[in-house]
Amino acid sequence: MNNRKDFLYQQLADKIETMIINGTYSTGDKLPSVRSLHAEHGISISTALQVYVHLERKGWVEAREKSGYYVSYSRQQLPQLPEISAPSRTAALVKVSERVSLVRHTVAIKGIVSLIGASPHISLLPVAKLNKALRQAAREEKNAYIPYGDIDGHLPLRRHIARLSLAWGGSVAAEDITVTNGAIEAATICLRAVAKAGDTIAIESPTFVGLLQSIENLGMKALEIPTDPVTGICLEQLETTFRKRKVAACLIISNYNNPLGSCMPDHHKQQLARLIEQYQVPLIEDDAYGDLHFNAERPRTIKSYDRTDLVLYCSSFSKSIAAGLRIGWIINRRYHEQLARLKFMSSASTGLLPQLVLTRFLDQQRMDLHLKPLRQALRTQQAQISRAIQQYFPADTRLTRPEGGLSLWVVLPPKVDGWEVHRRALQQQIAFTPGSLFSSQQQYNNCLRLSNANPFDDDQHWAIQTLGKLIRQQLDGRR
Amino acid sequence: MNNRKDFLYQQLADKIETMIINGTYSTGDKLPSVRSLHAEHGISISTALQVYVHLERKGWVEAREKSGYYVSYSRQQLPQLPEISAPSRTAALVKVSERVSLVRHTVAIKGIVSLIGASPHISLLPVAKLNKALRQAAREEKNAYIPYGDIDGHLPLRRHIARLSLAWGGSVAAEDITVTNGAIEAATICLRAVAKAGDTIAIESPTFVGLLQSIENLGMKALEIPTDPVTGICLEQLETTFRKRKVAACLIISNYNNPLGSCMPDHHKQQLARLIEQYQVPLIEDDAYGDLHFNAERPRTIKSYDRTDLVLYCSSFSKSIAAGLRIGWIINRRYHEQLARLKFMSSASTGLLPQLVLTRFLDQQRMDLHLKPLRQALRTQQAQISRAIQQYFPADTRLTRPEGGLSLWVVLPPKVDGWEVHRRALQQQIAFTPGSLFSSQQQYNNCLRLSNANPFDDDQHWAIQTLGKLIRQQLDGRR
Repeated sequence: MNNRKDFLYQQLADKIETMIINGTYSTGDKLPSVRSLHAEHGISISTALQVYVHLERKGWVEAREKSGYYVSYSRQQLPQLPEISAPSRTAALVKVSERVSLVRHTVAIKGIVSLIGASPHISLLPVAKLNKALRQAAREEKNAYIPYGDIDGHLPLRRHIARLSLAWGGSVAAEDITVTNGAIEAATICLRAVAKAGDTIAIESPTFVGLLQSIENLGMKALEIPTDPVTGICLEQLETTFRKRKVAACLIISNYNNPLGSCMPDHHKQQLARLIEQYQVPLIEDDAYGDLHFNAERPRTIKSYDRTDLVLYCSSFSKSIAAGLRIGWIINRRYHEQLARLKFMSSASTGLLPQLVLTRFLDQQRMDLHLKPLRQALRTQQAQISRAIQQYFPADTRLTRPEGGLSLWVVLPPKVDGWEVHRRALQQQIAFTPGSLFSSQQQYNNCLRLSNANPFDDDQHWAIQTLGKLIRQQLDGRR
Repeated sequence: MNNRKDFLYQQLADKIETMIINGTYSTGDKLPSVRSLHAEHGISISTALQVYVHLERKGWVEAREKSGYYVSYSRQQLPQLPEISAPSRTAALVKVSERVSLVRHTVAIKGIVSLIGASPHISLLPVAKLNKALRQAAREEKNAYIPYGDIDGHLPLRRHIARLSLAWGGSVAAEDITVTNGAIEAATICLRAVAKAGDTIAIESPTFVGLLQSIENLGMKALEIPTDPVTGICLEQLETTFRKRKVAACLIISNYNNPLGSCMPDHHKQQLARLIEQYQVPLIEDDAYGDLHFNAERPRTIKSYDRTDLVLYCSSFSKSIAAGLRIGWIINRRYHEQLARLKFMSSASTGLLPQLVLTRFLDQQRMDLHLKPLRQALRTQQAQISRAIQQYFPADTRLTRPEGGLSLWVVLPPKVDGWEVHRRALQQQIAFTPGSLFSSQQQYNNCLRLSNANPFDDDQHWAIQTLGKLIRQQLDGRR
């Protein structure tokens, strides 16, 4: 009985939370009374009360004496969106690795309050079901994981990956899939398959530092294209570039770009697919965050509009199931033989053990069922961090409102020195990622990436508050 | 009781087998009578008889009526050793990948008789103990494998790897180790850390095709150095090269080179360590086969003589425990930061699950105890294949006699076309590796690499016999 009650109050609380976060209810709006919840939803008065206590604890509502519950959050009151980025138009060799080293070590500091999280907090992951799949694999697979595996990956897992492609508009065959050690290996192999040292790669600005590192390490040049914080890479600018110069490949995070959170609308994806076809430019699509959508529908992919197999699609289970299993993949037929060769050189076949565990997990679980609460939690965490930013950061702060993914992108007044904020935050045991990591150029040092991968607790609240203080101190010249 | 009896006869049979393979007994020598084994070793007559029946079945001895057992194998009668290789002295870009593709797919053909095996047959591996370690990890590690791991690798595993270095003359700290997805990723990362596209890499000739592919894919040039089938790379030639031209790095399989089987004597290793110090040339040492020694002592490494940390040591558990776990490592401090960056770009951190399994395995097992029967089996298989080659291949065949490892290198008369033999063998469901794969130059097409990784059964015997026939047919112009 308790379980059923928990379920009812949780379900109703989630619904009201959704309506608050998506703006159906705004700050100050009065919410249905406890009595009306009781009457309309067939729940007891105490369960109805529990709904509001829960929402109050999360910070979405406040009780007013003798009057009822009112919304205390408003999407409309969040900081303004950042402007479209305006990077320099010259392709340049990338040098971010040294800066990355400055940040990399902070992840492991004991007791740190992390606003870095590159994958959802473990409390949001299907740990029990994964452990079950692992125990089953351990009992039943016996010797399968001991010899070298297929260079393309474990076929039953590739079949699952192929089936999952339905959700983003794909109709992929297992034979077109190459399993890799995570999406970073996938993207690196793809880059090497279509470009060589000295070649120019068109990317979003800002974009994921891991991809910048790959470009750096392969001796390629990055050409940053202006990018809209909502709709992603600017297609007019990209086409102008195609017309004017040789671009060896594009490298795009189409859905919930890290760090910007942009998600290309369908018609942009289709238009981009036509563009690369017209100019015959291969495109590497990193869709690692696509499954983490907050709205009802999963966004499609550029690959789903790709008629000539010029898109090399990359993704992984790192953001949706378990990053530590290190399983990613590439989907592409055109370059398959080259990809297999490069995969062999990169690390030979991918280990079978994590593939066997994931196969069993996917045999037994419906991905959509597992992903639903994960998405809900990430959305809530994002809203909570956003509200805290609104509360504690300077008034002219700009902030993204991604409809999925793991990143918030904060644009501060130009005179803020992100590295200095980073240094001082670390002294207080707070870790975030300075914005300048996400560009090959000298820019975004007034920006921060904050991750919504971790539950928003008092520590996180304190961390945002403290960051706000450090930023204000800098602006006031009081440092 | 049965177990004890089995143990006694097996132990004695192994001893006699060793003395036959190492030449203490030669063809035609009379072996101790059944009665004297009974008297001298305190075993029953039936157990003593079982010893010889076992050795007869393996093909080492033959019974002569009313006279006893005689040796039917002689190391002395094996084909002559190949000569020192004589590759061209020009550094050149490598192009082996296309040829590799022709062979890669043959591994997976159903029902094929494989003389390819890159890792010991599963019957020789500690499967039960690995499964136990896996089940324990599945039960007890719970969530440890779910988040991203340390970019350097799981510390308890690095501690084990550090301790294992004692066996090859090392005294390594866990902090100097970078865990990788197998030795191929290790070698690729090392190459990238010390050299760039266009640079010249000095290698053995012939050498492992996987390393050639790495050099190819990184756009580096291979400079093949003459190599002795017993003592490995010719140091005089290497020094001459150092004096005359810029070499960015050496890439050497110091122990039981694949495919040649050469093992550098200690004083060569020491001399090479001094040479690279003198000329300041980093050296990547691939020691993947060092644990598979047939003699009592594990050979040392170049790294063990390395005073200035110019040696980047690479190895893996692929040949000694389980290739499918894909766990290798690099040992080096000097380039550690660069290696970590390149590792991140290659595949981010290495998956924790296989590392947890290996850690538990190594917590519980003594590597030397597990390796002893593996080495014995590989040595026996090598002797059995060698004898079959002696029996069925043309008289002027040359053949290596490695004292460890997984490869035999067969040099046939120059007019033999190895690719044609390969094509015709495949029609008969026999797979081996054509020699020309092991060079960046147009050479070794009259050579074959045969793997001794699999138990020598009737199929293997038939395969060698058939290869012999195909080769003779070619030589007679009867194809």
